[in-house]
Amino acid sequence: MVKQSASILNYEIGKKEEKNWLITETTFLPEYLGKTEAIFTLGNGYMGQRAASEEKYPNEKRGLFVSGTFNKFPGDQEVSELPNAADMLEVDIFLNGKRFQLTDGKILSYEKTLHLKNAELIRLVEWESPDGNRYQLEFRRFVSLANKHLLAQRITITPLTNSAVINIRSGINGQVTNSGTQHFKEGEKRLYHQHTLKMEQETTTSHIEFVHYCRHQFLQHNEVIQPENIIFMERRRIFMEYKHIEVLKNESITLEKISGVYTSRDIENGEAWKEETLEAFEQAGDYQTLFTEHKNAWEVEVWEKFPIVIEGNDFHQLAIRFAIYHLIGMTPAHDNRMSIGAKGLSGEGYKGHAFWDNEIFIVPFFILSQPEVARKLLEYRWLTLDGAIKKAKENNYDGAMFPWESAWLDEGEVTPVYGAADIVTGESTIIWSGFIEQHISADIAYATWQYYQYTGDDDFMNRYGYELIFSTAIFWQSRLEWNEQKQRYEINDVVGPDEYKEHVNNNAFTNHMANWNIQKAIEYYDRLVKNNPAVLQPLEEKWNLAHYRKLWEEKSAKLYLPQPNEQGIIPQDDTYLQKEIIDLTEYKNAEEVGTLFLKYNLEQVNDMQITKQADVLILLYLLEDLYSNDIKRANWDYYEPKTLHDSSLSRSTHCILAADLGEKEIAYQMFEEAIRIDLGPALKSSDAGIHAASLGGIWQSIVFGFGGVRMVDGSLRIRPNIPESWEKLSFKIFWKGSELSIVATQKDVKIRNESNKAVSLFVTENEVVIEPKLETTFSLV
Amino acid sequence: MVKQSASILNYEIGKKEEKNWLITETTFLPEYLGKTEAIFTLGNGYMGQRAASEEKYPNEKRGLFVSGTFNKFPGDQEVSELPNAADMLEVDIFLNGKRFQLTDGKILSYEKTLHLKNAELIRLVEWESPDGNRYQLEFRRFVSLANKHLLAQRITITPLTNSAVINIRSGINGQVTNSGTQHFKEGEKRLYHQHTLKMEQETTTSHIEFVHYCRHQFLQHNEVIQPENIIFMERRRIFMEYKHIEVLKNESITLEKISGVYTSRDIENGEAWKEETLEAFEQAGDYQTLFTEHKNAWEVEVWEKFPIVIEGNDFHQLAIRFAIYHLIGMTPAHDNRMSIGAKGLSGEGYKGHAFWDNEIFIVPFFILSQPEVARKLLEYRWLTLDGAIKKAKENNYDGAMFPWESAWLDEGEVTPVYGAADIVTGESTIIWSGFIEQHISADIAYATWQYYQYTGDDDFMNRYGYELIFSTAIFWQSRLEWNEQKQRYEINDVVGPDEYKEHVNNNAFTNHMANWNIQKAIEYYDRLVKNNPAVLQPLEEKWNLAHYRKLWEEKSAKLYLPQPNEQGIIPQDDTYLQKEIIDLTEYKNAEEVGTLFLKYNLEQVNDMQITKQADVLILLYLLEDLYSNDIKRANWDYYEPKTLHDSSLSRSTHCILAADLGEKEIAYQMFEEAIRIDLGPALKSSDAGIHAASLGGIWQSIVFGFGGVRMVDGSLRIRPNIPESWEKLSFKIFWKGSELSIVATQKDVKIRNESNKAVSLFVTENEVVIEPKLETTFSLV
Repeated sequence: MVKQSASILNYEIGKKEEKNWLITETTFLPEYLGKTEAIFTLGNGYMGQRAASEEKYPNEKRGLFVSGTFNKFPGDQEVSELPNAADMLEVDIFLNGKRFQLTDGKILSYEKTLHLKNAELIRLVEWESPDGNRYQLEFRRFVSLANKHLLAQRITITPLTNSAVINIRSGINGQVTNSGTQHFKEGEKRLYHQHTLKMEQETTTSHIEFVHYCRHQFLQHNEVIQPENIIFMERRRIFMEYKHIEVLKNESITLEKISGVYTSRDIENGEAWKEETLEAFEQAGDYQTLFTEHKNAWEVEVWEKFPIVIEGNDFHQLAIRFAIYHLIGMTPAHDNRMSIGAKGLSGEGYKGHAFWDNEIFIVPFFILSQPEVARKLLEYRWLTLDGAIKKAKENNYDGAMFPWESAWLDEGEVTPVYGAADIVTGESTIIWSGFIEQHISADIAYATWQYYQYTGDDDFMNRYGYELIFSTAIFWQSRLEWNEQKQRYEINDVVGPDEYKEHVNNNAFTNHMANWNIQKAIEYYDRLVKNNPAVLQPLEEKWNLAHYRKLWEEKSAKLYLPQPNEQGIIPQDDTYLQKEIIDLTEYKNAEEVGTLFLKYNLEQVNDMQITKQADVLILLYLLEDLYSNDIKRANWDYYEPKTLHDSSLSRSTHCILAADLGEKEIAYQMFEEAIRIDLGPALKSSDAGIHAASLGGIWQSIVFGFGGVRMVDGSLRIRPNIPESWEKLSFKIFWKGSELSIVATQKDVKIRNESNKAVSLFVTENEVVIEPKLETTFSLV
Repeated sequence: MVKQSASILNYEIGKKEEKNWLITETTFLPEYLGKTEAIFTLGNGYMGQRAASEEKYPNEKRGLFVSGTFNKFPGDQEVSELPNAADMLEVDIFLNGKRFQLTDGKILSYEKTLHLKNAELIRLVEWESPDGNRYQLEFRRFVSLANKHLLAQRITITPLTNSAVINIRSGINGQVTNSGTQHFKEGEKRLYHQHTLKMEQETTTSHIEFVHYCRHQFLQHNEVIQPENIIFMERRRIFMEYKHIEVLKNESITLEKISGVYTSRDIENGEAWKEETLEAFEQAGDYQTLFTEHKNAWEVEVWEKFPIVIEGNDFHQLAIRFAIYHLIGMTPAHDNRMSIGAKGLSGEGYKGHAFWDNEIFIVPFFILSQPEVARKLLEYRWLTLDGAIKKAKENNYDGAMFPWESAWLDEGEVTPVYGAADIVTGESTIIWSGFIEQHISADIAYATWQYYQYTGDDDFMNRYGYELIFSTAIFWQSRLEWNEQKQRYEINDVVGPDEYKEHVNNNAFTNHMANWNIQKAIEYYDRLVKNNPAVLQPLEEKWNLAHYRKLWEEKSAKLYLPQPNEQGIIPQDDTYLQKEIIDLTEYKNAEEVGTLFLKYNLEQVNDMQITKQADVLILLYLLEDLYSNDIKRANWDYYEPKTLHDSSLSRSTHCILAADLGEKEIAYQMFEEAIRIDLGPALKSSDAGIHAASLGGIWQSIVFGFGGVRMVDGSLRIRPNIPESWEKLSFKIFWKGSELSIVATQKDVKIRNESNKAVSLFVTENEVVIEPKLETTFSLV
């Protein structure tokens, strides 16, 4: 059900060339600041800046996250997380002595707009001060895609009723924390050249040095002016106060604040890196110069490179742009030592950790849009192999047991142990995923295979990919447990994708994916033996593969793989189908997810046929050839009604599976709900950050679902089946080094080969070859 | 000059028995929350709770400090400090869906009153919600003097225009920090018995465990009701939400929230201490029961025990009550391992550290009012001897070199190294006090002697006092530097009380106090040799006193003690009198202190005849027999005009010295300014906490200054000289185990001996003996 609450968001403000590019918050709700703080986050993969306002509010969550800068605070409740870096946004404005604050005085007009195309945030306010004076304020800002260290702000103030004397305090505030946890030691604060403020900090245990800068420039009548100013250094703060700036009625004053952040985790250039950053920062241009570079970068590197155009549904057009905007903004494409957090760089939620969300939901977008970035994301996993080996050893397994949650390279498992309150016992719930949610290792192998299928990147496979698949297959064979009574191998005591079920035996998804992982290892091993022993040799030496090749075959032959029962239902695990079934209407219709836990604790939910998110169904999507459409349909009909979609990973899977089954209406409905996970009216559910996997899922729903793109038996298949309301769907994908433009309508599909070599693919099941720079059109029936 | 700014404080709201007991903030100024947050702090010596409001504001500084629970966060900029413990005050109130927030909607009436007598904070608000509905809200709270672990709140809400549906979120918030520095590891959070919330925390490096509890009770129509509720556990937070509480127009709902904090630093009772605290907390009574015990404790232990009554000036009466209120509230009378921070327990300023403020400004109050507490404060110094010995060794000195700033017992020096911005260089100023402000060792010896003078407590001297005096005298003889050219000992490169002058040679105060310390050691050593060798023996063994006895005499005989020049001026140090003199009018008349540093940096001020606070003048006060009144007067006339009183320690010293010189008008003026340091209209200067030493100074101004109480040659002297506007000054003091009531008017003084033994003292220079339970009156001419 799409919730029908009134929204504070307007998607239709953009006209003409801005149509479907703008998302506007039209009402300022001080209780619900988290919504647009998160979904309007500005990012460039290096850093993400939550869209908190210049002025401060009690319920705000400011947040500046720099990719890969993990730190762990002491204590059992803490794990390594992405620290909230010093805030550079803060600007306190005093208009004729009154602090500009929207909760005070009157808001005469208000618009906070994220401009997706330019990745610029614009806030326009007409405000009546408690003293009765009116002012217009315009706030613009961006996080530069062209210079990844820079955040630029531009504030223009126009008094409307009287002349004004304006005071402004602005600087760098290192008092911010991760909900009270402080990750930084304070370092040097100082002022350079009477205009550049600097604050250094260092993470307490990972010892990453941060250098923050900011500088200010005031413009009046197009001239730079220098107001009276005084510097303040307080604990963890360095600020300038600009005083007595006089502005006449209907005239304006503009403040440009350029801020920068650099860390010792960046690719370094020797001992003088701090001095060099100061020089680089001081040489950066003004707002307009930086903005032009930034805007061009988005145009050339993103919107022109892998556009998706949906004609016939404006909101869907906007939604996919929103998804791509964030997928680019959250992804550390510059550094393979880093990955994507489950909330991107838009909030403290999930602590910046990488989950299976990346491999199953996000990596596919990059494989087809920016394969070089997909490669880096998989290289990240390879770089974390030592942590995965350590985790396996600690659990008495062989091979690579990847952490459920992953942070810095060698850290291994970083899943926190304690969660929300158990409403029955009054104690904190224990989070079991870090111990027993183990399918992640197979998911990584799967993404590796998928990347290889679409790209044919043998260099990647030789360096990293084969080792990822072999090492995880080695883990799985050691993980199997022999059931003497049943004379079979099992995988017991796990959590599957459905995290409502803890300590289950033989979760269908886990067992099948483990088996797939092992089979893929056998296949690749045999192929390398035959075709490429030179690549195999070092892996053979490191991993003793010949030994495991035998075990893979022997053990997997006896691995229990849950099969459809008489009704065609694949049991989610050994006991699921025997559990109580309750009426879920109340929870399915709830405005926010998670309401079930206001009534039951996890132990109680464990005993009911309630599924958090696609579990058997995601198996049927990922391993699509495993079962027939009839089996898929039977399982959909059984499991979907029992699924609360209490994970943002659930709906896009359902959408694609429905599209595969030809259930356009249901697929459409699921898509409608999926795109509203962050963009919909719910005011609280994005507080901790946007739902990264869901955004990848939106892309998959369009390209894999409605676009019908898929790898089938090593070949690319394109079989579009667009929703009734869409007139046209156009998109570009990269495939084995070639670039394809695809335009699907209700009637036909046109595919253009933008590359310099012929491509062979299946279109609506017919194998075709498209010559370089040519296009072909097929009718869809 | 007394500043004449409009004040947000009204001192005259109290009528009849509440007259001069109430201080009321009559205007809510969201920019200046720090003022009453600090000066309305509630405390019981165990903990201090800043008077932040239940609801949160952007500029607030919440603060709960538990005495002695020091912790050090990592980093060069950090020193051991009193951590800001989890906030238990927070209560968020939603009235018909609107959050109660004074910056929103309209304030129809507002009063925030500190009731000094009952140590209760009462806030009365009539508020119009942005939706037009009006409500009356009454907030009461106290920190119990009877049960030092408890904080009690009582909130009554009355809808005035319509019935209301009320939601309330309340609990324990451990996300608070010391301006961004987090001292706690998060511990267990849980709910007991469906009503008691618990949050545990532990300091990160000192490993002090904290247990916080809170529980709620709702009353409607005098009956306990149980609203629908749900528990929330978030990171570092545990809260209950109470929902859908319906209240009819003009009816009321009352919430009582009782909170408790216990730490492993408390005198412990074995391993089960946490369980015992839970039991103790759950057995505590309701607001009214706890309040009755609390009120009685203040009445019996404070107001009846050492009252000061000033007739003829209501504000002065209020001011001394305010001073005593805070002196009691900030002082850890329960534990000699703890001392008083320079801001008491009312803010983060000075990090909870003990300075000479205690010995010179605060201890005298306790010596004469609660000698057993004064003893504990001096025992604290004795317990820190190891740290002082360590500091001496590190600096290549002998004996005990006490730290300029002191925290936990064995930590030694904890003065931070970096201060505010240098406006000339743009860098942080270095704070030299921790390295070279050394007079603290003599100040501790002085307070020890003073305590002994007034109490005759030989037990204290035998156990602790002699060792404090000997060990500091040993330090001083090692500190002296031989000047070969001048054939004298000097003390070079110090900071004296005037901290504007760094790296000076032969600061008069330091040299004279060091000499006094050595002479006192010689005197006591010789007396013990003669009268009490048994006490001396262990000290002799530990300190090799006979050896130092010789050095004390030899070296001090050649110690340079700056003397008055031809004009009678004692040079503050070797170079002061040669420095430039500038016009200070602008800075003397400024609304806030510290304005000098908006124009000059410390290096520049170092080269001018500008004094921060009493330096030569405090020497003339403390060692009052050193020079004649003529010399005192000449130095007053020279130094006071050059003194910015940029320390709250300055004015009370000037007041007493002026009173001693018979300058009633000037003394009165200084007193008027001294009592306004916290109670005056300045809105920012108490932000970081009340000025503890200043409050002790207010007491000294009255009792030592206008009351004329002093020890002279081992005898108690009482020579009142009350201001013209006062009709009567009455107070009680303890002296050598006796209790004396003193009533001074313009004409006479009446002294009553409340004790069971005769006392001998000087009244207006005549030696008198007053028999037990009798009184005597002397006329004053």
